Amino acid sequence: MATQRIIDFLATRRPTGPCLVVDLDVVEENYQSFRRALPDSAIYYAVKANPAPEILRLLASLGSNFDCASVAEIEMALNAGATPSRISYGNTIKKERDIACAHALGVSLFAVDCVEEVEKVARAAPGARVFCRVLTDGAGAEWPLSRKFGCVPAMAVDVLTHAHALGLTATGVSFHVGSQQCDTEAWDGALADAAFVFNTLAERGITLTLVNMGGGFPTRYLKDVPTAQAYGRSIFAALRRHFGNRIPETIIEPGRGMVGDAGVIKAEVVLVSKKSVEDANRWVFLDIGKFGGLAETMDEAIRYPIVTARDEDRKEPCVLAGPTCDSADVLYEKTPYPLPISLTVGDEVLIEGTGAYTTTYSAVAFNGFEPLRSYVI
Amino acid sequence: MATQRIIDFLATRRPTGPCLVVDLDVVEENYQSFRRALPDSAIYYAVKANPAPEILRLLASLGSNFDCASVAEIEMALNAGATPSRISYGNTIKKERDIACAHALGVSLFAVDCVEEVEKVARAAPGARVFCRVLTDGAGAEWPLSRKFGCVPAMAVDVLTHAHALGLTATGVSFHVGSQQCDTEAWDGALADAAFVFNTLAERGITLTLVNMGGGFPTRYLKDVPTAQAYGRSIFAALRRHFGNRIPETIIEPGRGMVGDAGVIKAEVVLVSKKSVEDANRWVFLDIGKFGGLAETMDEAIRYPIVTARDEDRKEPCVLAGPTCDSADVLYEKTPYPLPISLTVGDEVLIEGTGAYTTTYSAVAFNGFEPLRSYVI
Repeated sequence: MATQRIIDFLATRRPTGPCLVVDLDVVEENYQSFRRALPDSAIYYAVKANPAPEILRLLASLGSNFDCASVAEIEMALNAGATPSRISYGNTIKKERDIACAHALGVSLFAVDCVEEVEKVARAAPGARVFCRVLTDGAGAEWPLSRKFGCVPAMAVDVLTHAHALGLTATGVSFHVGSQQCDTEAWDGALADAAFVFNTLAERGITLTLVNMGGGFPTRYLKDVPTAQAYGRSIFAALRRHFGNRIPETIIEPGRGMVGDAGVIKAEVVLVSKKSVEDANRWVFLDIGKFGGLAETMDEAIRYPIVTARDEDRKEPCVLAGPTCDSADVLYEKTPYPLPISLTVGDEVLIEGTGAYTTTYSAVAFNGFEPLRSYVI
Repeated sequence: MATQRIIDFLATRRPTGPCLVVDLDVVEENYQSFRRALPDSAIYYAVKANPAPEILRLLASLGSNFDCASVAEIEMALNAGATPSRISYGNTIKKERDIACAHALGVSLFAVDCVEEVEKVARAAPGARVFCRVLTDGAGAEWPLSRKFGCVPAMAVDVLTHAHALGLTATGVSFHVGSQQCDTEAWDGALADAAFVFNTLAERGITLTLVNMGGGFPTRYLKDVPTAQAYGRSIFAALRRHFGNRIPETIIEPGRGMVGDAGVIKAEVVLVSKKSVEDANRWVFLDIGKFGGLAETMDEAIRYPIVTARDEDRKEPCVLAGPTCDSADVLYEKTPYPLPISLTVGDEVLIEGTGAYTTTYSAVAFNGFEPLRSYVI
């Protein structure tokens, strides 16, 4: 949401063009909420959500660890003050030369989900710790994940056995319950799968110690979401249920949940028009769209709260679209978005909850437009 | 398709990481094909398809005009050697200060599709020429456009009348029949609409002179597409049908049709794996995906030809995905893509027909990955 600090920054600095403003105080509050909610879990911030150096430095100073998707993200985390031991190379799809590069930088924790990836890690990072990602069904998530990452639990047993045989440390299991996961019970089934992998490998003499419970923690958009505390209680109960008194080390990887509500995009109304005099709905065009950072409006998946200075006026639904010459650059059309009927060209709008997955998604130069600028305050 | 020059370039230079290579000879051939197919139409290259300076300089030297979506694209066209009189500001969604900037740069031809935009142009570029975009149904296009651009023909009459009243030159009508339009007859209905606007305004004493027939000319992906000649014949016949002996000046705006088949992306297989031993299909992961430039695989809309060194081997369908930690970064899954069963980690693949709408679409730094590099030879 737009904090007073963000509102003051925009009023004072008056940046031109669309931009994201992130309030570090909110990031710090989110970090402490996760800390309190899951005091026994290590927090690995998902750098891909927002890799702004100021955010990484703050989280490094607070003691966070970092989940990185690429060598570039590993370097960003190191530059922010994290030691290699606080970094996980969490992408299951890695080039062997990138694994070697991470290994050379001191990183020793890697995600895998198949024997082919295990073999790369064994060659390029001998002796490293690996955790195997298992598939989940993603029920309850606003963005259930595809089957892209992970393997079935029975295969995870083989993958970790193979890792052990190649001299790697088979350290545990990871999963991801789906993005913007609003069901606090969603972790239960995946933890049952994790316990199955732990128990089966124990029978083979391989002792796993780590469960990486991934991200999925939501940001509040238009609807309320459960608190970090509610997730913490539910996850702890599920751990107790499936692991009894032998609860393993656990990791969580909040990304959206850490920075989503810390950021607000300031945008401008470029045009308000109709396609014919009979049309029921207006079209409202902003100076930011799908290719300028709002990629998560794809299929109208995420519906961001939008604030204007005219919100006291009557609202009517409109089709909301971006400024490019691409006809796919439409934010909300299937479910038109209610905005004030008095909204007009030049008006400023604030798009809330946009701290995660906006800056890095933006196209490098589509239609000649610059990538989304960002200010971290 | 991969020309010998592209193959030689890749063999000699061996660039690391995914990259696009564009062969200027193919761009020149495409330009001359459009020239011959529609000798009486002015060619306005849609800069957004690929704004590489080498492409713009070549086309400027060949006599092409330029359809620009932003002030940045106008500056690129000017830097490539185009005079302002050869530039159209074709985006119907423009900030007033950008119109003023284009006007100051000497541009005098603007797209509009509503009275609100006409008023901006009248204030910021007094006396300019404007054409009004009309909606088409996009039937026959692989990517029919949404209703984002244009208005119904009856409203276009009012928009152009308003422009005339405000001292602008109401110059004509534009439309776009949809991207990758494979029906050569698709221009007929839109030209009928254009003739309606011409005739209605003539009755009001306003003489239009220009029809901007937009783009939509396809690139050959896996299926054959009609030749530029076939489009030329069909379009000329439709012009004759609807305008009789008073055929207006016409413009075409090829983008994909000009550069699509001139470019090839070189990528690398990062991983080949299965999710369970029972799975029928492999997953093949490349070092480029939806966020690295292949945004047009959205909804599996465009199916690019993919060439490997193992194409003599037996092929089986696979799910094809990109390298990021985003589960939406999957290229082909609903219709799995047949690739050689012998394909393995480290293999190079060539993704053909990728000269248009790839480099500029790529995310600025998603997951820490660099935007798509490009070589124009």
